[in-house]
Amino acid sequence: METMGLVSFGRYICSHLSLLLLIVLPLGQHTVEGVWPLPQTFTSSNEQYPVNPQAFYFGYGRQSAAQRGCSVLDAAFIRYYSLIFPDYTGNDVLRFFEDKPFHIEINVDHDDCESYPHEDSSEKYNLSVSAGQASLNAETVWGAVRGLETFSQLVYQDDFGSYFVNQTEIDDFPRFQFRGILLDTSRHFIPVHVILKTLDAMAYSKFNVFHWHIVDDPSFPYQSQTFPDLSRKGAFHPMTHIYTQSDVRRVISHARLWGIRVIPEFDSPGHTKSWGKGQPDLLTPCYSGATPSGAFGPVNPTLPSTYKFMATLLKEVSLVFPDSYIHLGGDEVNFSCWKSNPDVRAFMQKMGFGVSFTKLEAFYMEHIMNITSLLNKTAIVWQDVFDYHEVIPKDTVLHIWKGTPANYKRELSKMTKAGMRVLLAAPWYINHISYGQDWRNYYNVQPLNFSGTAEQKKLVIGGEVCMWGEYVDATNLTPRLWPRASAAAERLWSDEKQTSSVDKAFPRLQDFRCKLVRRGIRAEPLYVGHCKHEYQGV
Amino acid sequence: METMGLVSFGRYICSHLSLLLLIVLPLGQHTVEGVWPLPQTFTSSNEQYPVNPQAFYFGYGRQSAAQRGCSVLDAAFIRYYSLIFPDYTGNDVLRFFEDKPFHIEINVDHDDCESYPHEDSSEKYNLSVSAGQASLNAETVWGAVRGLETFSQLVYQDDFGSYFVNQTEIDDFPRFQFRGILLDTSRHFIPVHVILKTLDAMAYSKFNVFHWHIVDDPSFPYQSQTFPDLSRKGAFHPMTHIYTQSDVRRVISHARLWGIRVIPEFDSPGHTKSWGKGQPDLLTPCYSGATPSGAFGPVNPTLPSTYKFMATLLKEVSLVFPDSYIHLGGDEVNFSCWKSNPDVRAFMQKMGFGVSFTKLEAFYMEHIMNITSLLNKTAIVWQDVFDYHEVIPKDTVLHIWKGTPANYKRELSKMTKAGMRVLLAAPWYINHISYGQDWRNYYNVQPLNFSGTAEQKKLVIGGEVCMWGEYVDATNLTPRLWPRASAAAERLWSDEKQTSSVDKAFPRLQDFRCKLVRRGIRAEPLYVGHCKHEYQGV
Repeated sequence: METMGLVSFGRYICSHLSLLLLIVLPLGQHTVEGVWPLPQTFTSSNEQYPVNPQAFYFGYGRQSAAQRGCSVLDAAFIRYYSLIFPDYTGNDVLRFFEDKPFHIEINVDHDDCESYPHEDSSEKYNLSVSAGQASLNAETVWGAVRGLETFSQLVYQDDFGSYFVNQTEIDDFPRFQFRGILLDTSRHFIPVHVILKTLDAMAYSKFNVFHWHIVDDPSFPYQSQTFPDLSRKGAFHPMTHIYTQSDVRRVISHARLWGIRVIPEFDSPGHTKSWGKGQPDLLTPCYSGATPSGAFGPVNPTLPSTYKFMATLLKEVSLVFPDSYIHLGGDEVNFSCWKSNPDVRAFMQKMGFGVSFTKLEAFYMEHIMNITSLLNKTAIVWQDVFDYHEVIPKDTVLHIWKGTPANYKRELSKMTKAGMRVLLAAPWYINHISYGQDWRNYYNVQPLNFSGTAEQKKLVIGGEVCMWGEYVDATNLTPRLWPRASAAAERLWSDEKQTSSVDKAFPRLQDFRCKLVRRGIRAEPLYVGHCKHEYQGV
Repeated sequence: METMGLVSFGRYICSHLSLLLLIVLPLGQHTVEGVWPLPQTFTSSNEQYPVNPQAFYFGYGRQSAAQRGCSVLDAAFIRYYSLIFPDYTGNDVLRFFEDKPFHIEINVDHDDCESYPHEDSSEKYNLSVSAGQASLNAETVWGAVRGLETFSQLVYQDDFGSYFVNQTEIDDFPRFQFRGILLDTSRHFIPVHVILKTLDAMAYSKFNVFHWHIVDDPSFPYQSQTFPDLSRKGAFHPMTHIYTQSDVRRVISHARLWGIRVIPEFDSPGHTKSWGKGQPDLLTPCYSGATPSGAFGPVNPTLPSTYKFMATLLKEVSLVFPDSYIHLGGDEVNFSCWKSNPDVRAFMQKMGFGVSFTKLEAFYMEHIMNITSLLNKTAIVWQDVFDYHEVIPKDTVLHIWKGTPANYKRELSKMTKAGMRVLLAAPWYINHISYGQDWRNYYNVQPLNFSGTAEQKKLVIGGEVCMWGEYVDATNLTPRLWPRASAAAERLWSDEKQTSSVDKAFPRLQDFRCKLVRRGIRAEPLYVGHCKHEYQGV
């Protein structure tokens, strides 16, 4: 009793409060079930350990290939400290003797600290939480980042603001290697800081691909080094509505630190109206009878200059974006302009295409895919290229975007039967809003529920949530994306059998949505109710 | 040339830039058409006058009944200075000799500076803009506030950031006296600062009523002085998810300064689950066979204690909310619980209601409406009260919320034929979202397009945009509300014939939406495109 004084008095209160808490807290309220997306295997108990922000330490294990100075993990420690302790300001005056330290030790097998995440990157991790410590083991730093996210979701606060974590054992890995979100920055310009914040929220749901649909008909915001006129004339505004090279680097490096790949899409030959403004002779002049109408159609596939331009542009893109994938689009090519143009028709005669404009489109896409191959990049193309064409390099990834479940299941069967790798987006066109809990539809998608062999199913590399930009910009992107996209995130990460019930998922997704709100993400509510901490922004 | 120096040099550039602008600016781009909602009558020309933030003055006319010290207008001047000059920081270094002052002189007929806006408040104003000055005349300060909003929308910036206004003459007044927005703070709690920001945005669209659906089944956030247990036990959280008396005063005084009335709704006898938690014996115990099931139904209409409680609560409400209207709800009463309760059935026998539960409901509502009359308040009730009951005080306002256009038109005819005043909400349930430009539906509503005499049509006092809270809270309220609600705002303010084309309204609403974004309102886009100044928040 010799230390009886202010501090010891605090300790007295504190230990009594702890006792109280053990009684008050409903047992089992805070378990690993609170992690979204659900880990593959876990065990946890109601044994809870205090986690004190003033005595919390990240550390590298002695055996870890990555050590202090590892850019990815050092940065992750800083970010996750704030995420684990969302209201800790560092201003607490009272300190208690009994504040025990909590150490989380990270071990990774590979020193891939300065690399980029890629298609084969392991995201496996093992997380073990016991009294005063946690141990996080992963093959790669990307797996460690996923494990840190899980750990951050395990820590909770009691009603007095103290932090706790329960005894937990988790082995986790993603079901699909490709879990993407598409943002469309052509129909509306999305400021860079909004993209960065979206990348943060993606990491909270363990998404690992940002598919940047960067240009399209309405605007060309990518500021090309080689062809600066493309954005100068094709952006909504040449100064304020563009992505400079530095902006793009910022997006890529921010994404890298979260283990998120950035795959750019330069969609052609359709969806290119904005390209034509800064690149004369690129688009096909449409004819009205015998004379040009003044309108332009898809990229002109008959001119050598087109392929020279595309090769130069794609070379630049392949250098600016380090990912080994490039999305080449190839969707929704409208043939009416090509048909109207006498030069195009003459070219088709010469090439022996007859009146098959799909052959002309195939001719164009094959050239573009060849350019991509020569650049050592893997092409992704929308399903149209498979539906209408014949020769597609075997390593190309086909992107399904059309139709009803019956339609996309048939497509999954056909494509995988042809030995092609497939990415599923059709059921996750999240820009299509409706009244009510439409997240349930996104959750109920079963990507492998199509007729095919086990070998075929392995060819489904993952899925993508698409946020097309007709009605979306910085004002409403976040609440439309979250937590609806998180429903797809669990479908793409977690075990199918353990996540078969959308009703069981509902309270978990509600909890997760409140976590997003607590982290400053404007994630909209799923239904009537409240979060302990409501969104505080304006 | 003797003053040749820095300032004169600036002047030299400036006059040349002005010359350039006159050439570059498309004529007629900035006209009064840019005002939303469209004023009743206006003329304007392409003659443009510079408006310099450093030499801009608000002033009261000598004949004005309101003078300096008028709380409403003094506050409006401060707010509108920032709204007129959104990027003026006061840090401009260069000043030019030729900066001419611009005076806007306000004259009002009544010194209603310290009053509250009410149902008969005039919102008429006349605005006349000429070289270096504008004159704004109104009967009331509320009309002057509407005119200031119009003036603020007339001022525009050129590409160099200079401000201009065109010669303009406007006579304006609202088509309907009641132009409301309902927010539901029971299904989700909406923080006070979000309500205040919504009031700001309402004023930009000239809405003049905030219908505060403050309590309902899920939660009771209103902290009553008389019955503190209602929120202590019925709110989502008794400390963080409540509106204190001070919060309510803040909302009312903020609304007052914008000329917005605040009408609270205490909906009963249904929609009261949350009330029961803090007020024992208020709700009807439901029975399962011969024994209480533990569940509770609507307010118990058979007990004298119910009416005593309601009288006390409504008396408090009538003092806290200065508006002469109170919304009493009365919708969607589920009879099954009443039916199950033997005491209720016995009461009905005694009263001679037989098995008509609508008679029981009428009995209850008549009591509540009588209480309201004694408090000198006008009651608004949902249409159910008219549909199912007989005796409704003649000054009651009926609120139509049900069904298709055919349904609500029939209802409009019936109610106005019965000589009742009517408020239309049915076509503006804006919480119902769908993909695409659904604002067109809100715009196309014709509230007086029903079968009835001119006298009947005068009984339609206005309309209301309802944002029910099932799927809405602080994270997504603003982009769901704006600019979709603004479509209804123009329908309720402007002349029907001048605003008959939704296609003509489209570019104007796009412009207005960009103005909202510029003012920091997270108003979502209507379609593909951009604003010069995109939303800058996160």
